[in-house]
Formats: sequence, structure tokens, C-alpha cells
Amino acid sequence: MENFNEYFRYKDGKLYCEEVPLEKIAEKVGTPFYVYSKTAIEDKINQYKEAFKDYPTLICYAVKANSNLSILKIIEKNDIGVDIVSGGELFKAREAGIPPNKIVYAGVGKTDFELSYAVREEILAFNVESFQELEVIDKIAKDRKKKARISIRVNPDVNPKTHPYISTGLRASKFGIDINEALDAYRYASKLENLEIVGVHCHIGSQIMDISPYKEAVEKVAELVFDLKKEGIELQYFDIGGGLGIKYKPEDKPPHPKELADIVIPIVKQTGLKLIIEPGRSLIGEAGALVSQVIFTKNKKDKHFIIVDSGMNDLLRPAMYNAYHHILPVNKKDKKVVADIVGPICETGDFFALDREIDDLQRGDYLAVMSAGAYGSSMSSNYNVRPRAAEVLVEKDKFNIIREREDYNYLIIPEEKGEI
Amino acid sequence: MENFNEYFRYKDGKLYCEEVPLEKIAEKVGTPFYVYSKTAIEDKINQYKEAFKDYPTLICYAVKANSNLSILKIIEKNDIGVDIVSGGELFKAREAGIPPNKIVYAGVGKTDFELSYAVREEILAFNVESFQELEVIDKIAKDRKKKARISIRVNPDVNPKTHPYISTGLRASKFGIDINEALDAYRYASKLENLEIVGVHCHIGSQIMDISPYKEAVEKVAELVFDLKKEGIELQYFDIGGGLGIKYKPEDKPPHPKELADIVIPIVKQTGLKLIIEPGRSLIGEAGALVSQVIFTKNKKDKHFIIVDSGMNDLLRPAMYNAYHHILPVNKKDKKVVADIVGPICETGDFFALDREIDDLQRGDYLAVMSAGAYGSSMSSNYNVRPRAAEVLVEKDKFNIIREREDYNYLIIPEEKGEI
Repeated sequence: MENFNEYFRYKDGKLYCEEVPLEKIAEKVGTPFYVYSKTAIEDKINQYKEAFKDYPTLICYAVKANSNLSILKIIEKNDIGVDIVSGGELFKAREAGIPPNKIVYAGVGKTDFELSYAVREEILAFNVESFQELEVIDKIAKDRKKKARISIRVNPDVNPKTHPYISTGLRASKFGIDINEALDAYRYASKLENLEIVGVHCHIGSQIMDISPYKEAVEKVAELVFDLKKEGIELQYFDIGGGLGIKYKPEDKPPHPKELADIVIPIVKQTGLKLIIEPGRSLIGEAGALVSQVIFTKNKKDKHFIIVDSGMNDLLRPAMYNAYHHILPVNKKDKKVVADIVGPICETGDFFALDREIDDLQRGDYLAVMSAGAYGSSMSSNYNVRPRAAEVLVEKDKFNIIREREDYNYLIIPEEKGEI
Repeated sequence: MENFNEYFRYKDGKLYCEEVPLEKIAEKVGTPFYVYSKTAIEDKINQYKEAFKDYPTLICYAVKANSNLSILKIIEKNDIGVDIVSGGELFKAREAGIPPNKIVYAGVGKTDFELSYAVREEILAFNVESFQELEVIDKIAKDRKKKARISIRVNPDVNPKTHPYISTGLRASKFGIDINEALDAYRYASKLENLEIVGVHCHIGSQIMDISPYKEAVEKVAELVFDLKKEGIELQYFDIGGGLGIKYKPEDKPPHPKELADIVIPIVKQTGLKLIIEPGRSLIGEAGALVSQVIFTKNKKDKHFIIVDSGMNDLLRPAMYNAYHHILPVNKKDKKVVADIVGPICETGDFFALDREIDDLQRGDYLAVMSAGAYGSSMSSNYNVRPRAAEVLVEKDKFNIIREREDYNYLIIPEEKGEI
């Protein structure tokens, strides 16, 4: 069995994260737990830094992929910024020490409370998604006697060829302002006294494996930048969003940050603007795994089931997007089986893999669901009143719990004062 | 506009839950919030009690539909039981005062911890889903010097004609033991000294609108009961599970509990066993709504978007199952529009309705997503670091908060001790 990546490797048949056997963590922390390789995260940050080093670029990690406070502290320590989509993400970014001048804020539905909070914090830029949002930010900035820096999120109508739910740059999607109306939006913004126009933003989707749509999108947006210049509207930032794909299947060959840099820098360079990129999944996805224990196995006619102690409440992606996650035994077995690997939740949709060839795991064995660092814990829930999993950060031969497993008492705190 | 049901009605153009205008709650509690009509819940409980009053029946509310502590206290006050699927649900049921002898416990992946907990609590019955689970319960019961009462969940291989994810009675699903192997399972169980066989359980699915599959399933299981009797294995309970559908669309005509009673009682009667039924969605679904405020509206070419302050993290069903939920304005408008009603989450899948004709709602207006009492709050998450919604219980002209809105500080408690 080959290693899935260089951070999760087998030694003597045991799966390690960096230099720590996953079994050791399981015995200490219990299951299920998310585990992240700190080295993997920092290596990826450095890949991005290296790829974009010849052009002024602010890397803004997309917090929605994984908002764990300790992950955000790694972001802070590595001196990069964040792309947020809510007041909660702003709160966590600030808790982690990320300075406001490295924070950009996107999202179609920012509430007044969230906008006020971000105006007060004086973030680098709001990526504004509608005319009405421009108006409201202007009003809030006025009330707070501040200028709010804004970019306009334009929708370049490019198809990223990914799952429909995570294609965000098509004209019919809720995101951004149609590129043909963008000039009007900038003209409108330029008349609002409490706004400072600083940039342009686009984001075409997520888990993108073919980078050619980036070229098309960035070229369209560059044209807009030139048109704005002609009207006297000068920008500072060209934010191309995120979306690079990662390896979910062993055969996947996701694009390297260098490829993205090579395709976008020559275009952005012509505009003279600073670049902002927003990697989320590609920064954290492959750095993480979800480790579970087999509770039971069972056979039903021609089906073999491996039932594990994590479920769709822990990792929603297979049920939600029919997403493939590679699954590895924590301790290798000699025999293989074909099995449905399913969780304890009372829905048929609660599965991690269907008809998957895998080592013949038995009750008590551990397994690792790979590439679960992004949109894993961040989408997890308490469905079936299941406390959310612990999260563990590994660096070399050390590991720390960076999110304690929830307990039943924590879950009921908000409900304790209810009266009937 | 007609009223959606008798608990959510318009008076002078304003939508009420019982005798409380939803606008009043919104102004007091903020948005988004779930609101439940206590009268609706109790009326439905009484419908079930009335429908099954001529036959010894234990009604066990399926906690997974909505596990709010105050909802469970209503269950307790109305003297019915619960169907649980996890240790967390057991904890909440016990916190609400539900006695162990009214608790049945299903689920394919019960952990040793959960089984021990339920054995110690001496619940009415484990609905056992595999041979291995029988073994493990026996061992745990032995260690605790208790007898564990068990039913076997058999899989009658009946198609309930509902969403594939919530069809649970098909042979290829992970649930239960194939009905053809059930005799063997009972024989095996009868040899395990620390188990007391008390019943048989089946559950064919959820949101069932045509009750004929119940007849087929219950007839198959009744045959098994007779076969067991011939072997000297006497049962006490015939648990037919839950699954009755509810009204999501205005034109839906879900079956009445009486119809279910009429179809199953004559069959179960022949076995002489007590009946257990497990309504979840049908008990709480129509009693609840999710109320949100419009943050922004926008137009993009031929599309009109109404962007609200709740998202797929609050109510996952539209994104997850492509489920229809009826949406009503909290204050009626004269004009209608066709709109996509979407949330603030950064995914195209974050919608409540697409191309829906609805009142021409504007920024600041409130709307109610109907039939959100079941699998709403119970499936909610903190995706995009969004604090979960408040929950409110209405009775006549009074309302109480039964779950406080989460705040940012609550969310980070488990992460505060992390080190990097």
C-alpha cells in the first residue's frame, strides 16, 4: 500500500501522522478525532508563498474550510491573512491574533451586526456582493465615523467544472455582481462618501482541478480594471479568490500553487494591482484526517458493512456531495474485503464509502478518512445528539488536543433555562 | 392566502404562531429562530393516543427529529416514551425526566460506552441491529450484573417510496438484520444468558405518504413472530417504528395516525403483542417553523434573490435532500415576485427555495420556513462559524426561549486550551 501523502505514512504497517502513530492518539484521546499535520499546513503555506514570491501577494486563508483556533494561530504565526465570511469567523480570527489589515470579508448575507463589527475592526476590505450591501456599509461606516474599504465581488460567469453546489461564479448563482453591471456598481460606490474603493474580487468555485477557468475569469476581471481606470477609479487589490482542488482519490493530481501563479500573475501584472489569493481547502484539506474505530461489522446477503463510531454529523461531505474520501486502515491487515463503511446515524445517507475495497477491519480496529482537513470539522453538527469529535494537532513526534471532545453537559447548556 | 395549518395562521395580514405574532417574537429574540407550537405538539400526541387507544400501545417519540430539552419535557408531561439512537439522546431524555421503562434504543453503531450507559439505566429495550451487537450487549450486561432487554430490528425489505437517504428498510441498507436471518438471530440471542428477549422491531423509512408499505412490513414481521412462538420464543412488544409523512407542500395530504392504526392493529392483534410506535417527524414537524429576516435583495439578470439571515447550517434539508419547505411572509405584501430565497453561506447549495413565487419581501422583512420542527435544529451546525439559532416555544399568547441563541464565546470554549 502506498502512502497517501508525505505526512500520513506507514511504518511497519502502522499509519503515522508525521512521527506519531495514529493508534497512539486514538488510545489517548478516544475516537472519533480529527488529526492535522502542522508540517503539512506550513509546507503548503510555504508552497503558496514561494509560488507567488515574485509578485506582491497577500495570501488570505479561507477560514470556512477549517476555523479551529489553533489552525488560525498557525496562519497568524506564518504571517498570512484570512478570508472570512461571518462575524463568527472574524471573532475567531481576531482571537487568534490575526491583524485586521490582513482580513477580507466576503459573503452575500452580511448582517448589520456583522458589518458593524467588521467596520469597527477596520478590516482590509469588504468583498461586497450587491448594490444594497454598498448602501448599508456606507450607512454603517457613517454612523461609526469610519471609512470602510470595499472591493466589489464580480461574477465573471465562468464554469469551474466542479460540483454544482460549490460552483460560485456562474451568472445564475447568488454570488457577486454580474460583471456587466460591475461598472455601474463601482460608479455607485464611488459616490458613497464613507466607502473607500480598494479592489476587485472574484471567486469561481471550489475543488478546481483544471486551472484554465482561472485564466478566463482573471482576464475578464482585468478588463474591468482597465475600464475602471479609464473612469478614474483606481484600485489597489486584485482578489482572485480561492478554489484549488486537492487529492481525494489516490489518482488525483491537483494543480500546484505554482501553476496558478504562472497563469494569473502575468495577467494581474498588467493591471499593476496587488494580488490577493484565498486558499482554503488546498491549504488544510490534505493535512487532516478523521480517525474512527470500528464498532461492529455485519453481513447482509451480498453486502458487508463496517460500522464506525463517526458519522455524517462528523463529516458531511460523502452524504452531502456524494464526495469520495480515501480510507486507510490505521494498522494494515493481510486480507481485503469489499465493504460499505457506514456511521451510526439513523439515515441510509450516513456512509463514508460504498462498495469500497479495504483491509478486512474488525471490531476495535481504527481507520482514517483521508483529506478531511477542510469542510470536515467546520461542517460538523450534533445530529443524533452526538458530541462533536476532538481535534488534534501533530508536529513531528508531539501531539496536542486543539479542540476538546464535546460532552453531553456542554451540549445542553443553551437549553437548560427552557420552560414549558 | 390560506393558512398553512391551524397553529400558524394569519390575522390582519400578520402570521401568528397560536396567539403570538411571529413579528413580536422576532423583535424580542432576534432572528433566526425556530418556533414551535406547544398546542400543535400536544394535539398530535393526542391524535396518536386516540388512534391507538383501543390497543395496548406505547408511543415512543423519535428524539432524533428534535431533541430540545423542553420538547422532551412535553413528551414526559404527556406520559409517552422515546425512541433514542445515541447516548446523547438518552442523556437528554433522562434530563427531561423520561423514565427508562419508556425508552427504546435503536441504531447500527452503539458504542460500548453508550451500551453500558443504557444497560445501567435499565431501558425498556435495545433494538439490536446485528449479531455482534447481541454479543457485546450480553457481555456488557454480564459485567454490570444486569439483564438487558432486547428486541431484534429486522429488515423486512419493503420499499417505502421516499427519499433514498431515509429509506431504511431495504435489504441493501445498513439497518437491521435480514428478515430471513432473524430466526437465527433470535435463536442466538436466546442462548445469551444476560439478555432477555422482549420484542421485535422494524422501521421502513421516513416521510412516508402512502401507508401501504406498513401493511406489507408488519405482515412479514407478524409471520416471524408466529415462527418464533413455534420455537418457544415468546415476545412482548411489536415495534413498528415510525415514519409517517407530514405536509411540506400546501397540497400534501399526509396519512392520519388513525389510518396507520387501522392498518397495523388488526395484524399486530393476531400476535397478541403490545404495540410500540415511534413517531418523530409526524409529531413535531408541522409544529415548527424557522423565522428569518431578509438581509438584502438583489437582481442578477433574470434572477431575483432574497437573501435571509439563516442558512443551510440552520436548516440543512433543502441542500441535503433537495427538500421542499413552504415559505410564508410574516407580514403579507400586496405584490408577488419569483425569487431564489437563499442564505448567507458561501455555497450555491445554501438555498431554501429556488424560483419560488412569494410576496415581494424587502430588506428587514421576516419570513417563516414552514414544517421545520423536525430535522431542523437537530441537524443544525456551526458551518461558517455561525452561532446556532434560538428556539422558542409558544403556548396560546405566551412564548419562552427554550434554547438560547449561541454566542461566539460559547463556540470557542472547546478550542480555548489548544496549543500549537
